[in-house]
Amino acid sequence: MPGHFTFYTEEIKNNQAVFSESESKHMVQVLRYSQGDTIEFTNGKGTIFKGSLLEANRKSVVAKVEEKTTSDIPDTVLVLGILKSSDRMETVVEKCVELGINTIHLMPSENSERKKVNLDKLYKTAIAAMKQSHGNYLPSIKVSSIQEIIQEYGDKLMLAHCRDGFKALPKVLNRDSIICVGPEGDFSEKEIDLFKVAKATEISLGKRILRAETAAIAAITLANLNA
Amino acid sequence: MPGHFTFYTEEIKNNQAVFSESESKHMVQVLRYSQGDTIEFTNGKGTIFKGSLLEANRKSVVAKVEEKTTSDIPDTVLVLGILKSSDRMETVVEKCVELGINTIHLMPSENSERKKVNLDKLYKTAIAAMKQSHGNYLPSIKVSSIQEIIQEYGDKLMLAHCRDGFKALPKVLNRDSIICVGPEGDFSEKEIDLFKVAKATEISLGKRILRAETAAIAAITLANLNA
Repeated sequence: MPGHFTFYTEEIKNNQAVFSESESKHMVQVLRYSQGDTIEFTNGKGTIFKGSLLEANRKSVVAKVEEKTTSDIPDTVLVLGILKSSDRMETVVEKCVELGINTIHLMPSENSERKKVNLDKLYKTAIAAMKQSHGNYLPSIKVSSIQEIIQEYGDKLMLAHCRDGFKALPKVLNRDSIICVGPEGDFSEKEIDLFKVAKATEISLGKRILRAETAAIAAITLANLNA
Repeated sequence: MPGHFTFYTEEIKNNQAVFSESESKHMVQVLRYSQGDTIEFTNGKGTIFKGSLLEANRKSVVAKVEEKTTSDIPDTVLVLGILKSSDRMETVVEKCVELGINTIHLMPSENSERKKVNLDKLYKTAIAAMKQSHGNYLPSIKVSSIQEIIQEYGDKLMLAHCRDGFKALPKVLNRDSIICVGPEGDFSEKEIDLFKVAKATEISLGKRILRAETAAIAAITLANLNA
């Protein structure tokens, strides 16, 4: 089944790629790859490799690198208030990886009912989405406070919130955008004020009220596909 | 909790709105509304009403219409190959209703593993999304063959598929667009040929390979939010 998935490993040395136990199991036990088969894989850092399997057992797969292609990595960044539903956070991660994303910051907002995040599970979702969509980049996913976010990005932040006021149109979004979307119930007034003091650009995502995860997916779509 | 939901009923006569048993239960038992409370509701056909509850028991709620506002209804149409996962079809319906959609055609494609659809369940998802996002329009959701679709829309169809060839950029999408997205595994060659004979416009959704439901959500986002 060549081309069906792009597998993932960061362990690539001397033209040999070693796959983790879970990747090996998926490849050998689920997808029935065997020695000599050709696969496509990525290091999650912008490079896609082609290679043939030197060893193929379900605990360990080793491939010989035969070709590599490096392409651009995505620049878009998402800041998302931590959502109550971990399923909905997984949906955001999945869709963002497909559409192209560099970094996802999960921010414990005043209105976040949940404060903790299972990053392992979100990384698993991200890896699955990257493999499925033949992606070349595994985003960094981390929990960051509003202070850390403002310090890192300052006036580059694009703030999509539901309160009234003047807002830029969605066409301002582009591949370098740093997009902020609140949790269910939106960012708090205090948080919006902090973003405004940092000179974030307030943007509109249309007249309709979108769920937090829909707003995030819509903004990442526009950032990546605005012509 | 006024303003938290926009409720839904089509039974509005002589300035009185009567709600179904499930809407009544949601309003009274779950959200604890009682007689005299003010609610917002829609007929799903473009009008938002405000009114106060004359009767509020969990089998039947009646409201007196006090205000009404009519606004534009969405024009965007989605044709989606029937997906294997009904969860993923529900996600598409939910996001499309939030973003704004007039009609969703579910098309039994040659590559659709599933041929039947639970329309009742999808309508429930659509109603919930409309209520949650304070929408004013409940789309029509139906199963349509490729022949019916081509006959209805012909050269107005915008075809997003993954095969190679010249494609228009996402910026051609706008609020009147009729967008076609295949199921998992895409439309078949034969289906793509039928669309081409009908003079559909082939469009690109970027270089990445998107899952069927991500492509649908991305295209509807662009159609509604392209400036």
